[in-house]
Order: sequence, then structure tokens, then C-alpha cells
Amino acid sequence: MRLVTFRDGAAQKIGAVQGDMLVDLSELAPDMLTLIDGGPALLDRLWELVARDTTARMPLEGVTLLAPIPRPRKNMMCLGLNYASHAAESARFRGRPTVLPEYPVVFTKAVSAVNHPDGVIPYDPQVSAEIDWEVELAFVIGRAGKQISRDVALEYVFGYTIFNDISARDIQNRHKQFFLGKSLDGTAPFGPWLVTPDELPDPHALGLRLRVNGITRQDANTCDLIFKIPDIIATLSNGMTLEPGDIIATGTPSGVGMGMQPPTYLQPGDTLEAEIDGIGVLRNTVGGR
Amino acid sequence: MRLVTFRDGAAQKIGAVQGDMLVDLSELAPDMLTLIDGGPALLDRLWELVARDTTARMPLEGVTLLAPIPRPRKNMMCLGLNYASHAAESARFRGRPTVLPEYPVVFTKAVSAVNHPDGVIPYDPQVSAEIDWEVELAFVIGRAGKQISRDVALEYVFGYTIFNDISARDIQNRHKQFFLGKSLDGTAPFGPWLVTPDELPDPHALGLRLRVNGITRQDANTCDLIFKIPDIIATLSNGMTLEPGDIIATGTPSGVGMGMQPPTYLQPGDTLEAEIDGIGVLRNTVGGR
Repeated sequence: MRLVTFRDGAAQKIGAVQGDMLVDLSELAPDMLTLIDGGPALLDRLWELVARDTTARMPLEGVTLLAPIPRPRKNMMCLGLNYASHAAESARFRGRPTVLPEYPVVFTKAVSAVNHPDGVIPYDPQVSAEIDWEVELAFVIGRAGKQISRDVALEYVFGYTIFNDISARDIQNRHKQFFLGKSLDGTAPFGPWLVTPDELPDPHALGLRLRVNGITRQDANTCDLIFKIPDIIATLSNGMTLEPGDIIATGTPSGVGMGMQPPTYLQPGDTLEAEIDGIGVLRNTVGGR
Repeated sequence: MRLVTFRDGAAQKIGAVQGDMLVDLSELAPDMLTLIDGGPALLDRLWELVARDTTARMPLEGVTLLAPIPRPRKNMMCLGLNYASHAAESARFRGRPTVLPEYPVVFTKAVSAVNHPDGVIPYDPQVSAEIDWEVELAFVIGRAGKQISRDVALEYVFGYTIFNDISARDIQNRHKQFFLGKSLDGTAPFGPWLVTPDELPDPHALGLRLRVNGITRQDANTCDLIFKIPDIIATLSNGMTLEPGDIIATGTPSGVGMGMQPPTYLQPGDTLEAEIDGIGVLRNTVGGR
């Protein structure tokens, strides 16, 4: 199932995408977090509703999609340096030897950074002139858990989505800890939908790509993740409760602007397409201030 | 004014402390975030209500206080290495030369880490055997802003509180980025109340201390903050919108357990008193699992 949040006048609603049609799920829940909180019982009702012939559908075309969770309840959690190829380009950029992380490197992006499918990423050279891209597979937690063991970890995943971890490299490097350089307004576009795990039985075999103005800059596969999703869930939940609706981005492969020779960053008007097999394409443009 | 969140049966309410009495503010707002969102108009009504002779008061003693904002809308933001003395002890611990930060070092603590006045800090040696204390002055943002200039920054402060940035040093060091080691459940006690700025005209002249089992371990003054509150607000709001209810902890001085010779960490049953002049004392104990 592909689950979306969409704009309906001034309101926001949730829906399920069926081919090129959209099923309005308002009768089940007012928003995605409420749907996730509802657990398996509400999901069962969702499947029934969508399967029914008589359920009203509207064309997906022309509907404005929002980030599947437009206002997360806490900062998004992100893995750093979780592909060997990206760890190498980052080390080269900083003039240091490549050291692969022994333990997951985890930072957060502010809730206020959320951006939407087709959303414009603010560009203000007074704030940062080194805005970079990072395509990532992200997943959303479906139920609360702590000390979750690797062998049951995937049962805690509600769905998967595409995450573009837009990064202000100058700020990221200046402030040492990554948070500020990762949290400028509009630098966390994700979507266009959440895909439930039944459609992605193996999340560690997905091609992922990022194109800037149509040119492929990143092209990798989630099989190369250093820390796989069960490792990530086990590590994060070791002393920290994971909660329904938590968003966790798994890290980016090589091919970011910082790694180019010379480093090359985004410019106003650039278009970004982040693509993951089995999910789709997340498009954004770089705007003015 | 000292503003609290307190337990009333199964419910939570907000109140104002007047000497040893508590004024119930339920008629103004259901919770602290709603009060903050209400802005100056609602604050004016608060002052009127508290000043009225006929307003009902109850004894503060026996009331269970909660963190002033029991469920923040985003991760708490924290400054690292913002006192020269603590930057020096941290560098010594890591066997590196002391380098004072040129720019604020900012990380976050998960929303799920909130703990309360007199709350028990979970202790599980399987998760971490290096639980450390950090007394800090924290402030709460009162209104939304971006690109806030230093000269008006203090106008964005709704109130001040005491924050104990409990840190799992082993996890913090293992994972490089600070987030995980700072986000174990229960490691963000703050309170016991928010103090409005009229009672603290100079937040940069406050003695702050931390005692473990009655022994003073940290004893400093906010005049020694490297980055002062206006610097912090200006830096964080440079591209990132600050929102009402945002919680920002300003960093800790020297005297943490990691800095002792040999490093000495908290043990089950230890009592912590974090004290800041003009605010009060935040007490917590270290529990079992």
C-alpha cells in the first residue's frame, strides 16, 4: 500500500494510492500519525476499505501531496557515513584517512525542516552557499519498543519512504556536531508516500539514485548499507524508546556534491530527483530565499 | 513568575507558584505549550488572575511537579563545550589539546528523554555504566522567529529553567555524534519551573551548582558562557525557524564525572541537586533499570 498525506483546500487528509487513483482515508483517521497509532486493527480496516468496489476514488493527478508525516512528533533521526563509498568521499573532502564507523553515527534534523514532494528548498547564500543533496531510504516506526532485538526489528517498521537529507556543508563543518547544518528550514523533503513492508519484502536490495537537473549523481543499492535496518533499530532502541511515527533515515551513498572534484553545490533553479526502486521518485527544486 | 506543570489525579495542569502556594491556571490554558502559544495577551490575563485576591490557591507542598513542558514538540537543543573550563576537562579526558569552539556546538536530546523534578533516572549497566551529570541554564522560546538579531534576541525568551543534561559517556564517545549518548530515556530532567524573564533581568550572572549526594561537583557562573544567549539565538535562527516552546540548554561548566581523576560516574541510589541562583533546585535520583 502507498499511503499519502494530501492537501484538500486548507485541510490535510490521508489517502491510499491505487494505480493512478487516490482513495480518501479520512473516515479511518484524520492524519498519518493517528493511522500509525491505530496499529494493526486500523490497518485491517484500511485494507477492507480500499478493497471494497464501492469506495470512492479520485484521480491522483492534480492532487497536491505533502510529506507523509507533515509534522513529526520529534526530530528525524539520520545515520551518517553508513555507506563505505560515502564515508570515503567525506574523509577525502576533509583530508583525512577513511575510517568506517564501528558504531552507527546518528544525528537529528529539526521537525521544522520538513519539506514536501515538489517542495521548494529555500536558498539564501547569506545562510549557506554549500547546499548539498543526499538520497536515503527512510523508514517509519509503527509501534513503541525498547531493547528491540535484531531478529524481530523489521516488525516495528510501519513503512518506507524516500528521504533527501539536504545538507549545508559549511554550517555542518563549522559547528562540528551535524545538527545545525542539517536543520535549515525546508531541508528535509520526504515522500512522496509511505510504502508498507508487504510491498518491499527486502529493504536491503533496493537501487537508489539521485539526479540533479537530470544528471545522475548518486547510484547505489541499499545492500551496501554498513548498518542494516535491524542493526539500526536495535542500536537506537538500546535505552531509548522508539515511538510510533519516528522517522529514521538510513544514510546516503557516495556521489554528493561535497565529494565532487571540485566540490559542487546546488544553485537556485536546480531540480532534484531522488529515486528508490519499489518506492518511486521524490522531486524538489532549489528556490530563492 | 514561576510557572509549573503539575499532576492532578490522572490529568496534568499548569499553575503559578506564589511563595509556598500554587495558583491553578487551568482556566487560561490546558498546558504550558498552549500558554506559550497564547503570547502576550494570554500572559496579561495570567498576571491579572494571579494578582486577584479572590483567586483560589492551594499549598505547593504535596503537589507533584512535572517537567514544565512534559512533551516538547521537537528535540531539546543543547550547546556542547560552552564553558572554557568544561571544554578543557573534556579535551583532557580524550587526551587531546583544548580547543575552544569557534562556533557553537549544537546537538539534540530526544523528546522521549524528558524527566521530571524528583524523577528517577533509569540505570541499566547493560545500556551504559557511564552515566554523568551536567547542570545547565536552559531557556524556552516564546515566539517564532528566524534570522533573529542579537540585540532583540532576549525578547524571544519566554522563560528560564534548570536542565540536567544527563549523558551516557560510553555511548556518546562510541557513536561520535552526541545524539544517542544524550537521549536515553529519562536523561533530560528539567524544571522545577519556568521563571519568566522579569525575575531574571541578567541571565548571564547566575551562579549554578551541582551536588551529588550533597557534595558539590560543579560550581560556576553563567557569566562564563562562551556563547551567550543572544549569540545562541542568533546562530540557531540563522536559516532555522525557532518556534514557541523550543527548549535550548546553554551548556555545562567543568566538574562533570568524566573530568574527575579517575572518571567517576553515577551509581544507583545517588541523589542529584542541580541549582541555579534565582531559579531554584532540581532534584533527581538515580534508580535501577
